[in-house]
Amino acid sequence: MKIAVLNGPNLNLLGTREPALYGTTTLADIDARLRVVGAELGVDISCVQHNGEGELIAEIQGLRGRVDGALINAGAYSHTSLALRDAFAAAEVPFVEVHLTNVYAREPERRHSMLAPGARAVLCGFGADGYEWGLRGLVSLLRAS
Amino acid sequence: MKIAVLNGPNLNLLGTREPALYGTTTLADIDARLRVVGAELGVDISCVQHNGEGELIAEIQGLRGRVDGALINAGAYSHTSLALRDAFAAAEVPFVEVHLTNVYAREPERRHSMLAPGARAVLCGFGADGYEWGLRGLVSLLRAS
Amino acid sequence: MKIAVLNGPNLNLLGTREPALYGTTTLADIDARLRVVGAELGVDISCVQHNGEGELIAEIQGLRGRVDGALINAGAYSHTSLALRDAFAAAEVPFVEVHLTNVYAREPERRHSMLAPGARAVLCGFGADGYEWGLRGLVSLLRAS
Amino acid sequence: MKIAVLNGPNLNLLGTREPALYGTTTLADIDARLRVVGAELGVDISCVQHNGEGELIAEIQGLRGRVDGALINAGAYSHTSLALRDAFAAAEVPFVEVHLTNVYAREPERRHSMLAPGARAVLCGFGADGYEWGLRGLVSLLRAS
Amino acid sequence: MKIAVLNGPNLNLLGTREPALYGTTTLADIDARLRVVGAELGVDISCVQHNGEGELIAEIQGLRGRVDGALINAGAYSHTSLALRDAFAAAEVPFVEVHLTNVYAREPERRHSMLAPGARAVLCGFGADGYEWGLRGLVSLLRAS
Amino acid sequence: MKIAVLNGPNLNLLGTREPALYGTTTLADIDARLRVVGAELGVDISCVQHNGEGELIAEIQGLRGRVDGALINAGAYSHTSLALRDAFAAAEVPFVEVHLTNVYAREPERRHSMLAPGARAVLCGFGADGYEWGLRGLVSLLRAS
Amino acid sequence: MKIAVLNGPNLNLLGTREPALYGTTTLADIDARLRVVGAELGVDISCVQHNGEGELIAEIQGLRGRVDGALINAGAYSHTSLALRDAFAAAEVPFVEVHLTNVYAREPERRHSMLAPGARAVLCGFGADGYEWGLRGLVSLLRAS
Amino acid sequence: MKIAVLNGPNLNLLGTREPALYGTTTLADIDARLRVVGAELGVDISCVQHNGEGELIAEIQGLRGRVDGALINAGAYSHTSLALRDAFAAAEVPFVEVHLTNVYAREPERRHSMLAPGARAVLCGFGADGYEWGLRGLVSLLRAS
Amino acid sequence: MKIAVLNGPNLNLLGTREPALYGTTTLADIDARLRVVGAELGVDISCVQHNGEGELIAEIQGLRGRVDGALINAGAYSHTSLALRDAFAAAEVPFVEVHLTNVYAREPERRHSMLAPGARAVLCGFGADGYEWGLRGLVSLLRAS
Amino acid sequence: MKIAVLNGPNLNLLGTREPALYGTTTLADIDARLRVVGAELGVDISCVQHNGEGELIAEIQGLRGRVDGALINAGAYSHTSLALRDAFAAAEVPFVEVHLTNVYAREPERRHSMLAPGARAVLCGFGADGYEWGLRGLVSLLRAS
Amino acid sequence: MKIAVLNGPNLNLLGTREPALYGTTTLADIDARLRVVGAELGVDISCVQHNGEGELIAEIQGLRGRVDGALINAGAYSHTSLALRDAFAAAEVPFVEVHLTNVYAREPERRHSMLAPGARAVLCGFGADGYEWGLRGLVSLLRAS
Amino acid sequence: MKIAVLNGPNLNLLGTREPALYGTTTLADIDARLRVVGAELGVDISCVQHNGEGELIAEIQGLRGRVDGALINAGAYSHTSLALRDAFAAAEVPFVEVHLTNVYAREPERRHSMLAPGARAVLCGFGADGYEWGLRGLVSLLRAS
Repeated sequence: MKIAVLNGPNLNLLGTREPALYGTTTLADIDARLRVVGAELGVDISCVQHNGEGELIAEIQGLRGRVDGALINAGAYSHTSLALRDAFAAAEVPFVEVHLTNVYAREPERRHSMLAPGARAVLCGFGADGYEWGLRGLVSLLRAS
Repeated sequence: MKIAVLNGPNLNLLGTREPALYGTTTLADIDARLRVVGAELGVDISCVQHNGEGELIAEIQGLRGRVDGALINAGAYSHTSLALRDAFAAAEVPFVEVHLTNVYAREPERRHSMLAPGARAVLCGFGADGYEWGLRGLVSLLRAS
Repeated sequence: MKIAVLNGPNLNLLGTREPALYGTTTLADIDARLRVVGAELGVDISCVQHNGEGELIAEIQGLRGRVDGALINAGAYSHTSLALRDAFAAAEVPFVEVHLTNVYAREPERRHSMLAPGARAVLCGFGADGYEWGLRGLVSLLRAS
Repeated sequence: MKIAVLNGPNLNLLGTREPALYGTTTLADIDARLRVVGAELGVDISCVQHNGEGELIAEIQGLRGRVDGALINAGAYSHTSLALRDAFAAAEVPFVEVHLTNVYAREPERRHSMLAPGARAVLCGFGADGYEWGLRGLVSLLRAS
Repeated sequence: MKIAVLNGPNLNLLGTREPALYGTTTLADIDARLRVVGAELGVDISCVQHNGEGELIAEIQGLRGRVDGALINAGAYSHTSLALRDAFAAAEVPFVEVHLTNVYAREPERRHSMLAPGARAVLCGFGADGYEWGLRGLVSLLRAS
Repeated sequence: MKIAVLNGPNLNLLGTREPALYGTTTLADIDARLRVVGAELGVDISCVQHNGEGELIAEIQGLRGRVDGALINAGAYSHTSLALRDAFAAAEVPFVEVHLTNVYAREPERRHSMLAPGARAVLCGFGADGYEWGLRGLVSLLRAS
Repeated sequence: MKIAVLNGPNLNLLGTREPALYGTTTLADIDARLRVVGAELGVDISCVQHNGEGELIAEIQGLRGRVDGALINAGAYSHTSLALRDAFAAAEVPFVEVHLTNVYAREPERRHSMLAPGARAVLCGFGADGYEWGLRGLVSLLRAS
Repeated sequence: MKIAVLNGPNLNLLGTREPALYGTTTLADIDARLRVVGAELGVDISCVQHNGEGELIAEIQGLRGRVDGALINAGAYSHTSLALRDAFAAAEVPFVEVHLTNVYAREPERRHSMLAPGARAVLCGFGADGYEWGLRGLVSLLRAS
Repeated sequence: MKIAVLNGPNLNLLGTREPALYGTTTLADIDARLRVVGAELGVDISCVQHNGEGELIAEIQGLRGRVDGALINAGAYSHTSLALRDAFAAAEVPFVEVHLTNVYAREPERRHSMLAPGARAVLCGFGADGYEWGLRGLVSLLRAS
Repeated sequence: MKIAVLNGPNLNLLGTREPALYGTTTLADIDARLRVVGAELGVDISCVQHNGEGELIAEIQGLRGRVDGALINAGAYSHTSLALRDAFAAAEVPFVEVHLTNVYAREPERRHSMLAPGARAVLCGFGADGYEWGLRGLVSLLRAS
Repeated sequence: MKIAVLNGPNLNLLGTREPALYGTTTLADIDARLRVVGAELGVDISCVQHNGEGELIAEIQGLRGRVDGALINAGAYSHTSLALRDAFAAAEVPFVEVHLTNVYAREPERRHSMLAPGARAVLCGFGADGYEWGLRGLVSLLRAS
Repeated sequence: MKIAVLNGPNLNLLGTREPALYGTTTLADIDARLRVVGAELGVDISCVQHNGEGELIAEIQGLRGRVDGALINAGAYSHTSLALRDAFAAAEVPFVEVHLTNVYAREPERRHSMLAPGARAVLCGFGADGYEWGLRGLVSLLRAS
């Protein structure tokens, strides 16, 4: 089983970006951890980050037929991008959406998700841990279906 | 560490209730599984279910000072009950909210959560697995804070 | 054929409650009348009333597999309770919603129904008679399907 | 006692029109059935159908002083016509509104009724049976007042 | 193949009506042109115009089983009439909606269409040409299905 | 100078229709009075009433090039008909909109006017007198321009 | 009979203020004309203008028991002031609201009136003439009641 | 004179519940104080608290004919329960609504009150003192009427 | 301790203004009563009324450093004036907002308060008594802080 | 005459992307067909596709002075991108917007178009054919102007 | 060139008013600084402040033909006063709107400006400096036009 | 001190892009002017422009720790991009937002800013001059803090 882990805008700054809000774990830390979890689960993990919506779309398209599922933290694009949801539908890749913070407890513009209606599952507020639970959950969902 | 697992209205019917939507796992199955996970994590688990909003409020109040956190699937009350959010604040119990289905992909009235702004984290769409990820995530959050 | 008749909050006061609005017929009168109609139709009728949302949910759950349908006047809960709709779906009980008054001609908060999208049929404004038409209508629907 | 039964746009196609949604009973069948019920109740029934809003208005105006009440299925005009409500008020004819389908369970534009605030009672979702319950209910309301 | 071309309110004035907005082509010109295009495509064309919603409904109903599809410029009724959409559904006639002007660039009340959700396709802003593209498009759609 | 006076749905019942709200003056009384005022002003007056939106549209179209202006009480169509506004624009007939009652002090659905943005002037609440002031005002506006 | 004519903010600039929109007639011209009309009608006219909401309120209060009615062009305060409506109710002075321009055809913030629900009648779009029609209409309303 | 004092969900935790927000006074303290005030005013006071909406409804129903008025802090139910308002109307018990905090200065969901339109008076933001002013105010209102 | 009592537009007419709604007590009566209560509480009371928003702002500004708190019935300005709220913040004067009537049970435009989010407490519906409870409550709040 | 054909996000997957919704025609097929049509019309056609909003903007800017018009299927960006509309205005390139599916019959977020108010014409629902009608229509519009 | 600088409600308290939010610069300081800048630019500066909307309107009216432009900080009236915008239009005085704080980062009621649609330019968030940039910007705009 | 000047989509066309709206100054002109102003202020200026949201995000991220502040004209992205606001927060770069035109006087979709709540200050409507005032203002803000 292969799982792609996608990160959207500003997540490359994780660890230095507003650490009181987002924590001090870096994206590299998360990637490393996911690979360990992936190894435990017998799942190949590939991790990327893009700041551009177009690059994310191309990335998602490239997953078609190559991975079994995706875990995505689309950052602010979750709230403004319909094209990302379309890309997942076009690529026929089931995905789980993850957010570091509890988006329900932040500004109103973060409560609406363009992406989530296309997701299999959504989780938010677990900080960097959320990637692990999202990965484990996605693998379980895929194995059960 | 002690964690309470709370279930709201209609979750006692889990397994028989709209299985195409909610799956065939029963609440007893979930409880059993959470106890196993709890044992692995060194965490005491207690599970209850109530159909009444008042009973859930009393249950949450009773957790004050007795547990370290709670995992709640408040069912439909997530979308209509402000009193449950108040109860958690009053009891000073950090909690994680879980839903079996991806509420973003259902009727509009399920996209608004009264409860989530008070939660530490929220997850939905993982089916019965979501309880496990929610429990693991809550324990991680509590141990990290 | 068995039909459950459910009454929600404040309907126990029927007859004395705002008689200019709700009429002077009591719930006992309605129950008696429905039993007569039920006898005529060859249908067993059981009638209950609960003020609590949780009690109504439990009542509905208990109907699963025991009745062929339900007639419910959920009173104010029609406008605020998503959990009742979920309960009917969970119990797989087809139901008809009845209101004594024409809710379209009252305050705006009574024009929105949380319950009605799950109903087979809805009727309002016929006063106490509405129970009879609702019962006859429900039986017809069930026999035709 | 005299009761007019009015049908709005597209109801002349009943029986052939989207039978999965509206059933296979024709308007002639309904008219025949209502006359039988009318005979049982000692009520004269006259039935008409118009596709035009203006024709329906004229029809309603013509009822003034000539009938005791009306049963109307205004079809789509229920949701867009204020002039029909005005016509009933102008003609001083009490009326019951009926819909074949449960409008609460369909598109959002069918949940708002321009007509219902002027009605004595409203019923929907009983299919062609709804005309009978509406007629019986209207007669009861008129005899009680 | 037979196609009906329907025109709604005020389109009989085409050519003289606000020519800066709607152009100087008359409805007769359009009809003539469509017949030429129809002849080229091997399609019978019949064109009508009605100012009344009821007349349009009756016209649409009359198409049932007699034409393969319809092209309609419902004018202002596009924005206010649910009954026209119901009529097409009742008559089981696939249709294409056309507007002379780009309704997105006009007043807000013209941006909402009651009719379009029932259409196979919609086009606007091509002026009188739009009828030709609409007809050609409809024929292609019908032949492809 | 020629002025057309148009009346919409239910205004033929004026005098008998809800007299507490609309007064006891009939449309014939108003017409007679307007002819007297017209004679004083040197203006030809023609008065019509239609219940149908389509008939009103045709009437307005027929005014093109034949009258200098129009006074219209479109009744409930003021609030629901965009096609009437289009008809005036198509016919290039300046018009004044009149209502018997103060529509601002009634139900919310009467506060929005589809027609008024196309009008030269609007007046409401003067009862039957409003026709006279509307006529005098329209003539003044036309003579001044 | 005594009638007060009240003018709100910026109306003192009438004649020089945006003449393409508001015309070249000055407030003094209007006052002179209203006195002539008042003389014809046997009505005493007093005219004032205030830019301040508080001054207008005091003015309205001072009318209590001293005039039979008022004609007010409250300018922009029509759209923002609830206190003016309250002042008329407190002073028990029936009033007619007048606007020079057709407020329905201008910016959205001018379509909502705070004042109009308390008025007996409203007229707009007749330019300076509107004061005369408003005065005549008000006198007719008062004499008829 | 007899006055019932009703407390809704989570108010049993008063004194320990978010003391920075709600203060350190307990419900027992408030009850004691109200009894003292009641003695001064010659009014019998009975105090209850319920977490359940159904229990509160039953409590209110039980007041019918047994008390002269009620003082209620419905907590979060003020914002979500229509059934409580109906219960007071059904029981014909005039009531005053009290909140410890200034609900206008908190989250948006606390600014809307389902209960207040049925109240005689409302007060909020006085902390535990608010019960005393509410009681005194209610007694004054009842004695004056 | 010094407390200023401020009254907004139209409150100078209290006693004669819509007595069925606002009662027959005059502002002078209220002032006299508050002075008595003030004497009992050992608090200096000064009372003013202004119809103008600007005058009220100046009055509030003048309280800075001169009073310990203020009681204000801002009348209609509560619903439309942000500048009053700013004035209290600028003057650093804690205040209680009072209304004679239950604003929740009146027109929708009275349910929104611009002023209340800046208040310490709000009360409405107690009629003239409300000033006394508001004064007592304010003094208690100030003494407790 | 030169026409640019622009395709937005995910359209490179056409043919394989959700074929039940979007059809099996590929973008290459469409391009080939448009070149044939272009040859027939004597129009040079250039076709591009970009997933990135910035790339599309740059593409549109590059059309300035180089083409006579553009045909664009902006995909999901139609609903979220104001910058694309600005780009066309900046480049002074008249354009026609095309969608494969009838966007009116899909999710609410696809009913609002950011792009369409700047377009000359819009068409949707014709599948891959829509490009041909859009191209023919655009050429006609440009030749007529 | 002459420029008027206008200040609205509560700005007379600048320097003492919520200094953490608005700074410690007084209006006199700002006036002095603007006169220095004015001298540098060869522009006469006159500065006034009013708390009343009416006084501000009169002030703006008085600028007609006497100044070349105005710089206004209308404080809270920016968000509630349409009459101020009308006054500028009536006086034909181009103006720049300035706010001390970034109104976009404060309460929602400060995000909507009634005044700004009539302004030439708007700036906010620069504190007292904003007056200087606003003045320099206004002079540049006027000299360029 | 170092300041970055960022320009968003379509601003590379400045000078040729809709000159009636945006003026004839080019971005190069603006850059040159800002360097002169920067030299006067002792501030290093670097100017860039990107059409892509992702490129702008990367650019902003790259400013972290390298500049003291930024001046950004994000063009249409101001209204649609939450990710840009996040980027500034992540990079901890204070910024001023500038627009050439008065966005309050344009289409409704330009009145809402996603970016402005994160800005220190905002200015719009000064044309190309706005960059200078924005730069001077930003430098003042930074030197004062």
